[in-house]
Amino acid sequence: MAFGWIDEQAEARRRAGLLRTLRPRPADSPLLDLASNDYLGLARHPEVVEGAAEAARTWGGGATGSRLVTGTTELHTRLETELAEFCGFEAALVLSSGYAANLAAVTALGPHGSLIVSDAGNHASLIDGCRLARGTTQVVGHADPEAVAKALATHQGEAIAVSDTVFSVDGDAAPLGLLADACREHGAGLVVDEAHGLGVLGEGGRGAVHAAGLAGAADVVATATLSKSLGSQGGVVLGPARVIGHLVNTARTFIFDTGLAPAAAGAALAALRLVRREPERPARVRAVAAELHARLTAEGLAAVRPDAAVVSVRAPSPDAAVRWAADCRTEGLSVGCFRPPSVPDGVSRLRLTARADLSAADIERAVRIVTAVRPC
Amino acid sequence: MAFGWIDEQAEARRRAGLLRTLRPRPADSPLLDLASNDYLGLARHPEVVEGAAEAARTWGGGATGSRLVTGTTELHTRLETELAEFCGFEAALVLSSGYAANLAAVTALGPHGSLIVSDAGNHASLIDGCRLARGTTQVVGHADPEAVAKALATHQGEAIAVSDTVFSVDGDAAPLGLLADACREHGAGLVVDEAHGLGVLGEGGRGAVHAAGLAGAADVVATATLSKSLGSQGGVVLGPARVIGHLVNTARTFIFDTGLAPAAAGAALAALRLVRREPERPARVRAVAAELHARLTAEGLAAVRPDAAVVSVRAPSPDAAVRWAADCRTEGLSVGCFRPPSVPDGVSRLRLTARADLSAADIERAVRIVTAVRPC
Ligand SMILES: Cc1ncc(COP(=O)(O)O)c(C=O)c1O
Ligand SMILES: Cc1ncc(COP(=O)(O)O)c(C=O)c1O
Repeated sequence: MAFGWIDEQAEARRRAGLLRTLRPRPADSPLLDLASNDYLGLARHPEVVEGAAEAARTWGGGATGSRLVTGTTELHTRLETELAEFCGFEAALVLSSGYAANLAAVTALGPHGSLIVSDAGNHASLIDGCRLARGTTQVVGHADPEAVAKALATHQGEAIAVSDTVFSVDGDAAPLGLLADACREHGAGLVVDEAHGLGVLGEGGRGAVHAAGLAGAADVVATATLSKSLGSQGGVVLGPARVIGHLVNTARTFIFDTGLAPAAAGAALAALRLVRREPERPARVRAVAAELHARLTAEGLAAVRPDAAVVSVRAPSPDAAVRWAADCRTEGLSVGCFRPPSVPDGVSRLRLTARADLSAADIERAVRIVTAVRPC
Repeated sequence: MAFGWIDEQAEARRRAGLLRTLRPRPADSPLLDLASNDYLGLARHPEVVEGAAEAARTWGGGATGSRLVTGTTELHTRLETELAEFCGFEAALVLSSGYAANLAAVTALGPHGSLIVSDAGNHASLIDGCRLARGTTQVVGHADPEAVAKALATHQGEAIAVSDTVFSVDGDAAPLGLLADACREHGAGLVVDEAHGLGVLGEGGRGAVHAAGLAGAADVVATATLSKSLGSQGGVVLGPARVIGHLVNTARTFIFDTGLAPAAAGAALAALRLVRREPERPARVRAVAAELHARLTAEGLAAVRPDAAVVSVRAPSPDAAVRWAADCRTEGLSVGCFRPPSVPDGVSRLRLTARADLSAADIERAVRIVTAVRPC
């Protein structure tokens, strides 16, 4: 019978304790949230909410078509202009998600005959971009600019290196300066994903690329999501105008996808303006992450020193990680739990995310709970 | 120089008259819209707009995480329940776009060792799904159930056939009954995309799968977008609960993507409830399409008889199509223009879309303009 094979896989997953199910949250969850990617605490900010509502009222519930047909509004253009300006790039292109933005950038910039050098720790959306691209992908070790240079040296012709700027699992930052050096040495482009960098790193949250002095360079393209620090949905590709024009003409997840909903564009624009006006938010989220790390480490837990907002804590096993997260939840704390197959190295961990709006008492409470229910 | 190769391609595109640029529309465009996919005229309906605004107020600007972490709200669950019930399926899973839904369905149901039989006219997102899937894809002729049966007969093991229910370029319907027969004969699953069927075909807009008596079958999976008839953004996979559970556990564009923004979920839910309450809307959009076709044909234009809301009119060349669409626009009418590489057969055409809220005068005016500025 069609789809009968699914049951066997589900049973194996259940036996291994790896079955995932959805847990719908209510609007007024009593849990302390250290699991979301709402790094700046903006998703429920009144101005962000009103940005969404006002955009829906002005433009409707949806964009109504591909951005090449009816789906580009003046709101999309305004958002693109302000994102490019804030991040320090010549041009920007907004897509329906960060996932779509990564598929667009990698496929459009990794054409037939080109080489794509991809960090082993890259996000699923970059990996899928590599798989969809017509170029040849070479995966190199995590955060290893020398390996990137070596791979680029083997290839004649067009090439790009692709990396997260902040890796989603452990929250560690990529060596952007060295990556750019390696690329330049070989005339290659650098394509990096600022999903966890935008709003957190760099002056006023302008991102890791800006902090590395690479924003606006002719050979650097950044992608980002509007769904984390900007508290909305959507994705963006930032780069030279020629690259953005190329994506408009060739990127399938741009051309054959409905434009981002006006409400999401409006929410992201409101959030961006808030970040500009309140640059202490990015500074605060970094301070919260550093404090979480320091206190968890002081308690003897194996936490990775955070380069941005993500604090990763190792667990002894997938089962222990799941139980640990569940016990936190029982105590009123929501934390992320990463385990195979979502972790490249097979190591399960709790994933705690800092938010700019966590109070000292929140941090205190979070550390107390994580420590109290730790696996022996 | 990195990305230097882009200029050459752009120049070639410009010379061939194939350069695409974005044309932002204002909120109060004076153009008569026969280009969008807002088939039921719901994108700016007050209840849909309020659905978006209210959801943003209640849930915030974004879902804040993957649906497996913090990104599933009770609103998502409600939308899934009502979509499944309306379309006649056991279960539903909402994703951030129709594109993501198609990538999820095809990759999750076309695993290593399986055969994926794909219609040559399928949408880009289904094609990309085939390319990302670990199974082997065989492309068969357009709307050819015998070719599907033949392809399935060559394969031992798991297999699916993949098709749009209504093809996006010419608006023609797939032979769903015969496709299902071919699949059943070989124990294969049928995966179909209702992007242009939902809200248009079937009893009260329940879709082409429902009309074919296939909704809820154990071997049938449908995808759809929330961005066309439902006037919002997002995508959905509909199918047996075991299939939906399998996607939750394995589909990368579900697991590694932020959940659909609450405003988009709220808008789609409001639109769905409107469709239930006003089943004359789907009937009306089909009548408008039929009338557009009849009148354009009476004027001697080569229009394809519409099976749903899309009316495709052939143009003599890509240049002529572009000029034709531009001249329509000058006269106050917005129409779509499809040309290479967006058309599988290389034939350029105008793409007119019917809407349930077009008046007799609108139709009259549209036909007058399209005819008046036709290429000689
Ligand atoms: C590093 C990274 N890139 C891209 C994405 C995808 O962005 P989006 O959720 O907007 O599709 C995510 C997470 O969702 C991510 O963590
Ligand atoms: C047939 C078909 N499938 C899928 C999609 C993608 O849906 P979405 O725009 O919601 O990503 C579209 C158009 O956008 C389409 O025409």
